[in-house]
Amino acid sequence: MLARSLISRKRDGGRITPDEWQELSDEYLRGDVPDYQMAAFLMAVFLRGLDGGETEALTRTMLESGERLSPPHSGLPRVDKRSTGGVGDKVSLVLAPLVAACGVAVPMMSGRGLGHTGGTLDKLESIPGFRTDLTLAQARAQMAELGCVLIGQTAEIAPLDRRLYALRDATATVESIPLIAASIMSKKLAEDLTGLVLDIKQGSGAFLPGTERGLELARTMIELGASHGCPVVALLTAMDRPLGHACGNALEVEEAVHALRGEGPADLMAVTYALGVEMLLLTRVETDPAAARTRLEAAIGSGSAASLFQRVIEAQGGNPGIVDDPAVLPQAPASAVLRAERPGTVLRVEPRAVGLGVIALGGGRTRMDDRVDPAVGFVITAKPGMSVQEGEAIATIYGRDADGLERGRRALLEAITIGDAGDAPPPLPLLGWRVTSEGAERIQQS
Amino acid sequence: MLARSLISRKRDGGRITPDEWQELSDEYLRGDVPDYQMAAFLMAVFLRGLDGGETEALTRTMLESGERLSPPHSGLPRVDKRSTGGVGDKVSLVLAPLVAACGVAVPMMSGRGLGHTGGTLDKLESIPGFRTDLTLAQARAQMAELGCVLIGQTAEIAPLDRRLYALRDATATVESIPLIAASIMSKKLAEDLTGLVLDIKQGSGAFLPGTERGLELARTMIELGASHGCPVVALLTAMDRPLGHACGNALEVEEAVHALRGEGPADLMAVTYALGVEMLLLTRVETDPAAARTRLEAAIGSGSAASLFQRVIEAQGGNPGIVDDPAVLPQAPASAVLRAERPGTVLRVEPRAVGLGVIALGGGRTRMDDRVDPAVGFVITAKPGMSVQEGEAIATIYGRDADGLERGRRALLEAITIGDAGDAPPPLPLLGWRVTSEGAERIQQS
Repeated sequence: MLARSLISRKRDGGRITPDEWQELSDEYLRGDVPDYQMAAFLMAVFLRGLDGGETEALTRTMLESGERLSPPHSGLPRVDKRSTGGVGDKVSLVLAPLVAACGVAVPMMSGRGLGHTGGTLDKLESIPGFRTDLTLAQARAQMAELGCVLIGQTAEIAPLDRRLYALRDATATVESIPLIAASIMSKKLAEDLTGLVLDIKQGSGAFLPGTERGLELARTMIELGASHGCPVVALLTAMDRPLGHACGNALEVEEAVHALRGEGPADLMAVTYALGVEMLLLTRVETDPAAARTRLEAAIGSGSAASLFQRVIEAQGGNPGIVDDPAVLPQAPASAVLRAERPGTVLRVEPRAVGLGVIALGGGRTRMDDRVDPAVGFVITAKPGMSVQEGEAIATIYGRDADGLERGRRALLEAITIGDAGDAPPPLPLLGWRVTSEGAERIQQS
Repeated sequence: MLARSLISRKRDGGRITPDEWQELSDEYLRGDVPDYQMAAFLMAVFLRGLDGGETEALTRTMLESGERLSPPHSGLPRVDKRSTGGVGDKVSLVLAPLVAACGVAVPMMSGRGLGHTGGTLDKLESIPGFRTDLTLAQARAQMAELGCVLIGQTAEIAPLDRRLYALRDATATVESIPLIAASIMSKKLAEDLTGLVLDIKQGSGAFLPGTERGLELARTMIELGASHGCPVVALLTAMDRPLGHACGNALEVEEAVHALRGEGPADLMAVTYALGVEMLLLTRVETDPAAARTRLEAAIGSGSAASLFQRVIEAQGGNPGIVDDPAVLPQAPASAVLRAERPGTVLRVEPRAVGLGVIALGGGRTRMDDRVDPAVGFVITAKPGMSVQEGEAIATIYGRDADGLERGRRALLEAITIGDAGDAPPPLPLLGWRVTSEGAERIQQS
């Protein structure tokens, strides 16, 4: 009876009290509320919304449905970064060891790829032997030793969120700002952070393409963080083209290794540094942005960031040799170069089409139980605004076989548009907005 | 993938095509679309609505998911009545044999009670031995022999509607006009009717209390009937108080028997005759309302209606003796008289509270798998507008034991308000509106 009355109240635009969220959660996790009632409830939430208090209560209920990471206190401030998902977004792989190498603990819990966007866990698992399914106890021990761990959402963390997310995925109720915010924050709050930085992607390849919705998501999560004593800063960054060049699991790990060695693509480095600066400022390891940037650059320049990544890989059972020699990563058996069919300007590299191309190659998922091929993908050197000659190499396709290469080629032809300069709107600024509890401001492009 | 894309389209206010309704139905009935996806879809339908074409397509899909009654053609026109459900509404028990006794075939498929409203099947099953679960073949044979059958929705009729109705009941998605209209019409169209009369209840005890929504439901069903060649006429009748005096399964059968013998309460007879007239007009057995009314009165006066009820009961395994001697019906072991606690005017007999009182006595259901006690209930002689003396008997409570009687008494005290005349708005006119494909008109009170 409880579930039906809460469904009808939310259906009619009413409010759910904190006690009712708790009771609904208890009954759902006990199996007394079936998935079909929860699915109807989630659709009512999607269409009627949640106010700030309801979003807070849901977040707290999800957080308290499980355990917290709470490692033995290392004395270090603790910070994490979360992105809303994109194509070619390997920032986490670079940022976690980089910031940890600056003396801040980074307990990073990530997810898998689904649809056109990739997932950090899939990328990490392309490293031979690498395990992301640590227990909370193992994760705590590694945090104490290395100050950095790269894992998935364990069964102990926010089990209610796990259940609800799977249901939302199947019932077209994912793209709801309060539900997204509560889902992300319930897991991040379980990490007991000093601060959290959000990378909210904007543009055609993003989950919430428009800026207004991105800012609203940022504000919602900042508010949720504040009510749990966890300051949150959000950057809105461009996802109207892939980030960096590599798209595909092992290929992105290889690019991340290059980045940790100081050889990353400019756009990847700009986003990584911008987020890293916020992480150091939030934890008060640095109080000045320029000093924070210098410290990050030094951790790359000295090799300490790359070396920490190596130790993390080793601690999690992976082959640390991939940092010195990325050729140890799985290699696709076939490859082909894509060349510009005309001279002109690159007008668009559509990230959604690129992401679907990775799926077509076998490197992504349309369903959570799909297996991914770690080796396949693209390295796309073409960037919007770039001039190209006819026949110039603009991408390399890595596939399992000739059929795969052909599917990948068709996807890239769909994704990449070459035309006359001025025939398409300019790409989004790479760094769009910075949002804090004080407000939102456009980021000055350097 | 189909289900998710249809959910998201409806969620965003889009249209589902006839082919897509069919495909969704096929996949759902095959088990390829789980209940949780359908539940999210139904909530999206509830909140976004369906246009006329979509409602038609859903109705057709539900109709075609099963078989039709299609009995061997008796040559008789065929008509049915359906109400939206009320308290004390035993009209079907009177009307089916009455209209059938006038030379029209009446294949009446009814439902069970749920919540505060009663159900014709439960009432019929209070007759010792009466079976409502005939197969389609048995129902066809009885139609050919007697021109009247009183059954439940068999498993062969509109199985998609069956599944969806159970899911809607659990997910607070019942009170949607297009979903109600499609559900009712899919079953009635399976009876291959010459015409259909709807009794749409109005007032606090009704499913859709407001007149505007009642008229909208009427228009939606008239349109659905028209597109299947089945003319529909709807009357809006009062359900701001129980209909007749008896509320409870066997008690209502007894009152229906009295009505068939010409001794029914005035309000029950007025609604029964008004609906019966429409049924005779729709089938063209009569073309003049006054002549139709006379014909109905004659069928009662001659005893032919009561006699046909007896033959139907016998054909369906019940004890026909209940028509001559209603004391053969199950009798409650305990009873108590409720008396007016003050002199004054009966201001309200709130049907919802009365219906919940029947549940409290054990005679109704809060869940589909609750068992009902056929004998318990109320006989309420108080009607809004009636003057009463202090200590005057206004109702009799029939229960299993003293505890039950006390629960029943409390429910009636809640339901019945006695005060000073003029302290409450007057009750609704018993017969409110008549709606046909030509339009809606207020019914002149006789």
